[in-house]
Amino acid sequence: MKKADIGMIGLAVMGENLVMNMASKGFSVAAYDIDQSRVKDFSLGRAKGKSIIPCVDLESFINSIQKPRKIMMMIRAGKPVDSVIDQLIPLLDQGDIIIDGGNSHYPDTIRRAAYVESKGLYFVGSGVSGGEEGALNGPSLMPGGSKEAWKHIKPIFEKIAADVNGLPCATWIGSSGSGHFVKMVHNGIEYGDIQLIAEIYHFMKDVLLLSHDEMSEIFKAWNKTELDSYLIDITGDILAFKDKDGKPLVTKILDSAGQKGTGKWTAITSLEENVALSLITEAVYARIMSAKKEERMLASTYFPKEEVQFKGSKQDMVDTLKQALYAAKIVSYAQGFDLMMVAGKAYHWELDFSEIARIWKGGCIIRSAFLGNIQEAYLKDPSLVNLMLDPFFKAELIKLIPAWRNVLATAVMHGIPMPALSSALNYFDTYRSKTLPANLTQAQRDYFGAHTYERIDEPRGAFFHTDWTGHGGDTSSTTYNT
Amino acid sequence: MKKADIGMIGLAVMGENLVMNMASKGFSVAAYDIDQSRVKDFSLGRAKGKSIIPCVDLESFINSIQKPRKIMMMIRAGKPVDSVIDQLIPLLDQGDIIIDGGNSHYPDTIRRAAYVESKGLYFVGSGVSGGEEGALNGPSLMPGGSKEAWKHIKPIFEKIAADVNGLPCATWIGSSGSGHFVKMVHNGIEYGDIQLIAEIYHFMKDVLLLSHDEMSEIFKAWNKTELDSYLIDITGDILAFKDKDGKPLVTKILDSAGQKGTGKWTAITSLEENVALSLITEAVYARIMSAKKEERMLASTYFPKEEVQFKGSKQDMVDTLKQALYAAKIVSYAQGFDLMMVAGKAYHWELDFSEIARIWKGGCIIRSAFLGNIQEAYLKDPSLVNLMLDPFFKAELIKLIPAWRNVLATAVMHGIPMPALSSALNYFDTYRSKTLPANLTQAQRDYFGAHTYERIDEPRGAFFHTDWTGHGGDTSSTTYNT
Repeated sequence: MKKADIGMIGLAVMGENLVMNMASKGFSVAAYDIDQSRVKDFSLGRAKGKSIIPCVDLESFINSIQKPRKIMMMIRAGKPVDSVIDQLIPLLDQGDIIIDGGNSHYPDTIRRAAYVESKGLYFVGSGVSGGEEGALNGPSLMPGGSKEAWKHIKPIFEKIAADVNGLPCATWIGSSGSGHFVKMVHNGIEYGDIQLIAEIYHFMKDVLLLSHDEMSEIFKAWNKTELDSYLIDITGDILAFKDKDGKPLVTKILDSAGQKGTGKWTAITSLEENVALSLITEAVYARIMSAKKEERMLASTYFPKEEVQFKGSKQDMVDTLKQALYAAKIVSYAQGFDLMMVAGKAYHWELDFSEIARIWKGGCIIRSAFLGNIQEAYLKDPSLVNLMLDPFFKAELIKLIPAWRNVLATAVMHGIPMPALSSALNYFDTYRSKTLPANLTQAQRDYFGAHTYERIDEPRGAFFHTDWTGHGGDTSSTTYNT
Repeated sequence: MKKADIGMIGLAVMGENLVMNMASKGFSVAAYDIDQSRVKDFSLGRAKGKSIIPCVDLESFINSIQKPRKIMMMIRAGKPVDSVIDQLIPLLDQGDIIIDGGNSHYPDTIRRAAYVESKGLYFVGSGVSGGEEGALNGPSLMPGGSKEAWKHIKPIFEKIAADVNGLPCATWIGSSGSGHFVKMVHNGIEYGDIQLIAEIYHFMKDVLLLSHDEMSEIFKAWNKTELDSYLIDITGDILAFKDKDGKPLVTKILDSAGQKGTGKWTAITSLEENVALSLITEAVYARIMSAKKEERMLASTYFPKEEVQFKGSKQDMVDTLKQALYAAKIVSYAQGFDLMMVAGKAYHWELDFSEIARIWKGGCIIRSAFLGNIQEAYLKDPSLVNLMLDPFFKAELIKLIPAWRNVLATAVMHGIPMPALSSALNYFDTYRSKTLPANLTQAQRDYFGAHTYERIDEPRGAFFHTDWTGHGGDTSSTTYNT
């Protein structure tokens, strides 16, 4: 019997669908799960008649895969991954490859790669995006780790990935940790995109008082413009979807959002890496606030919403909203790519941002036409300092800004929270400020803590302290110059 | 020779000033520093003739302190603290007390307390706020850790702390880690206060075009109102302070703010603990953005500031700004106390928020009249869910909100970034929203990831999945109900 091209550990929906995807592309796949009944169900069900070898024990699973073995795990992130790695190591041969396709945190992946490589094996941490549908029909794949492994897994990854204009949404991201890092930022950006759409929906519903059918039509129309994207597309579907009683199903859904943690990881990483990722962080906070449903209901009785009527053309405002959404989206991606740039340097990953944008164009949740423009921007200038400075996006932003200001000023007066759209404008206005009021901040820090300051009329790196009160000490907390 | 009441390790400005403070209150203090020349300078200088025993080696230092020994460290946070603890342990006797007064990260303090207690000693991690001036004349002290230690250090801590209305700004915070946690949140709130003032200054300077002398007078006047606080006070001083050429010194200071990390810790902790601490996080991001001076100068040429003239009464707008600042400050403290409430429960610290507000009223950087109102609020209702729901602050907010909206709408149209003021209003508008657009978020998550949702017409805890497309799988990622 011919040995399998690759093995899959973990037959929950993602793992099972990836196996089906691989088999449909002509690969033979060994499939194992710690839960034997799951293997049997799969064997008698979807796997039947396919080039799939279901295995109920780990040893027969290992022996059914051709060397160098490629073993992919689609299991719960965290301790189970370490546990399976420790079970695999004694069974594997030099040069075999372990691939973690789960949502592992990148520092864990860095640690595991070093550990697995110390045993003479290769380790790849791969982002796999696109949910169950993507896993089955073509995900976006972000592998990183032992470079030597790539030539072995490339033929499979490129075949099973989503295809955009004849190119696979899979590329080698970089050394260890980079794949899961990039996937984490992808998820953070997804939080941002989702929150932006939620804020626009809130405005349409509570300021413009549009019906769900009207809003559905608007999103469907937007999906034929520069906003063309999976999330805008499904928003059009969702808003039109009717419950059994004929009312929009979305109006029956509780406004309390869940989260699985990758958005938080992204926000925390931005703080650790000194990158102002305000929009995604606000999106995470927005989910936290949404979950305080009972507290909000109480607070709404303390602070009833002001009655403000929208005056003006609804049609014009819909177009204005579209421009604001587009502008904020540019800023969100500018922040996300900035985080990847900074972390990429810190970890020596040598990330190719054009390639990253390209493989996000298909298969994953944030897939969009817009990512094509980002791909172009980094193709033209791989060391672009900030996405907003790319000529295309610069020109777009300049056109969009008046609308963006209009939407936010209106939201502020109507009491509609738009934390993500608003943090993005604040970021833009901060970023393009030649001078910020941080001179006062520095003066205060020097006043109370002798933290010293630099001067605009002296070279950078020269630090000064002032005895502001005339009676303070003359000892600065760090450097001291007169 | 009489033995010392307490010993101090570390004679940089904070340690030295605390020693002088203790000696001035009648305590005898042994003083040690790893740098012998520092001990000698101190001995021949400020310590001369005082009840201070300068020691150049650790053993004579230990032997000069009466038992149970109270040994306070004012040294750099991080590894030096662990190193000094390891040097001290073999030299100390059962029941001796080690106090870390530095800006240690609270998880380190929790770890160290367990370690030191396992050796039969006591450990106290104490926040010490107020900078060098506070250390000398009366800081705010936030000790937490081994409760048994408090009765021994209480007489000293209460004597050296700042005094407000006859009460010392020192109180026992709670078990291990709580003191440094509360100090961390204090510092986070300080970041927020500083950023709010910076944004108001920016608006006054660039929208109202006020002179620095005019602004100084405004802050001095505000300091006689409900905004009475150290930071408003020194802002009045700073804006009036002239450089040698007669121009305001603050205009010569480079607008690139430094930070020492406690603000970031606070923001990261909020994400870990699921608390929406948006204002402080924006303040941290604002410092990060300010430090990108060259990038901002470049970006300012790409996106020149729109020319918008302020129309209206400057005098009225100054009062409007004051109200906006006050409103945002209420939200900032609401967020900060929320973080303490959530973490306090998670760590079983049993924090007394009224006491925390009280000891912040003097000695520390955020000291203010406003903290008296917070003290009252938690005195009346120790389990207050959110500071904004206290009757006093609720009534204040309702009065202030129109002004706050006015300021932000104006800032948005003028292109003045106000990330902290703006995130606070978004938090307020979110918090008092009975319904948020998170129903759409949940629908999207269920659409692409089968993450399920709850319904408004079904009990909480029942999760539903919809096959939105008619061709998706029927496997939800978690629970499944039809």
